[in-house]
Amino acid sequence: MVEDRFGSRLRASWAQSRFLCVGLDPDPAQLAAVAPGADAHAAIVTFGRAIVDATADLAIAYKPNSAFYEQFGPEGMAALRDVIAHIHAAAPHAVVILDAKRGDIEHTNSAYAIALFDTYDADAVTIHPYLGRTAAEPFLSRSDRGVIVLCRTSNPGGGEFQDLRPGADPLYLQVAASVESHWNQPHGNCGLLVGATWPTEVAHVREAARSLPLLIAGIGRQGGDLRATIRAGLSTGGGIIVSASRSISHAGTGAGFADAARAAAIDLTGEIALAVN
Amino acid sequence: MVEDRFGSRLRASWAQSRFLCVGLDPDPAQLAAVAPGADAHAAIVTFGRAIVDATADLAIAYKPNSAFYEQFGPEGMAALRDVIAHIHAAAPHAVVILDAKRGDIEHTNSAYAIALFDTYDADAVTIHPYLGRTAAEPFLSRSDRGVIVLCRTSNPGGGEFQDLRPGADPLYLQVAASVESHWNQPHGNCGLLVGATWPTEVAHVREAARSLPLLIAGIGRQGGDLRATIRAGLSTGGGIIVSASRSISHAGTGAGFADAARAAAIDLTGEIALAVN
Repeated sequence: MVEDRFGSRLRASWAQSRFLCVGLDPDPAQLAAVAPGADAHAAIVTFGRAIVDATADLAIAYKPNSAFYEQFGPEGMAALRDVIAHIHAAAPHAVVILDAKRGDIEHTNSAYAIALFDTYDADAVTIHPYLGRTAAEPFLSRSDRGVIVLCRTSNPGGGEFQDLRPGADPLYLQVAASVESHWNQPHGNCGLLVGATWPTEVAHVREAARSLPLLIAGIGRQGGDLRATIRAGLSTGGGIIVSASRSISHAGTGAGFADAARAAAIDLTGEIALAVN
Repeated sequence: MVEDRFGSRLRASWAQSRFLCVGLDPDPAQLAAVAPGADAHAAIVTFGRAIVDATADLAIAYKPNSAFYEQFGPEGMAALRDVIAHIHAAAPHAVVILDAKRGDIEHTNSAYAIALFDTYDADAVTIHPYLGRTAAEPFLSRSDRGVIVLCRTSNPGGGEFQDLRPGADPLYLQVAASVESHWNQPHGNCGLLVGATWPTEVAHVREAARSLPLLIAGIGRQGGDLRATIRAGLSTGGGIIVSASRSISHAGTGAGFADAARAAAIDLTGEIALAVN
């Protein structure tokens, strides 16, 4: 029997009160500070390994965003592969969410599924809803992996299309309802990505999708109301993954960056616990 | 003054009756047939160079789809970089559309813009509309490059969200109208991706976005009605880019694949000319 690398892992971590997802997004300035003189591949791996080792006991998931590796070219992708392999070794309980926000027609998504799930060995991926469920089948059919669909993003201007109302509900709630009732069948391996900026919208998403794991992004960076957001996300008994990226991995620069990341992760874990309890 | 690598190149090709975009999507079976025994990097570059050399005089654009390179890991990305460099050298009039279908928040899109426009040196990219115009600013601000926004895709089930009606018009037409009137300002460097399957929908897109270049995808593969689609796309005087992938690059297997690709490109160029005139 193939191990379920998404839902089962999430439930095991939730049972241990782990909710924190650590983003791993290398940028040139941070790399120059934490690994001066190293080439891109070595610097990215040094950065990623150190953050993972410093937070492994606290994290339900790690979320490398593909963009920050792609900007370094093929060497960046080799580093992404090595960082993911290190997460599997050092934090085998954690879900590796490769935040790639992909989405194409079905034939092309078959190649993306090979890339993300096999070549880079991610446990879960993020995808766009725009092409519909049928196109996403190559992701959805991987019953041991997770598929997290963009629902309501936290960025300024994110409502341009997401807030349009094709009916009583805005588009993003129709996405939420469709993923809960259709995309998530038959494997139960879907989740939704929601921004932390507006707790009211997280509450609406939770009403429309009562069972799906919610990946709540933008904590720390965009000034979301953490406590209200977490309570909204947990209101129906569905689980949450609370993601923070730069506020942890860039908490410090220079030699002490891993210690600073651990301190920030402990702080945020404490804040989450206050909200959950 | 920086050369305009999108609109100016398109207009120069249209003036010479070039409309054909050749997709460059390597898959393992085709590579084994055209470059037996070669490693992935060498096989992909052999495949790409041969197709480009066989069609350079016919193509307004080349469209490598990122997924088919990503599945091969870092070596695939090195090959993508080399294939794009070869297009710039062998067909400097052609627009390299890196069909990546990206889309994230603004900060992350800055890294994607570096990756796609600088690291891989694409002239244009495809992106998702879901996060809105503000998030796309790192692409849109590159005034010398093109930004082609997904509008109405040709895949089965593509209407799940695209056909929802937030008002009198379906979502995809609201995307078309917004890209024409807002996203395309101030640089005039946007286009729209539409599937060739439904000429009626191409006509509606053309009415909603009278000036934007339309990248019409799915010719050949999905049985689109070529003549009706092309006439709809040209009806307001806006330009079109007619994309075919496997029907050209996979027209033959084995030693004659480049000759077969050229023959298929000539056939399709002739069909396009009949529709245009």
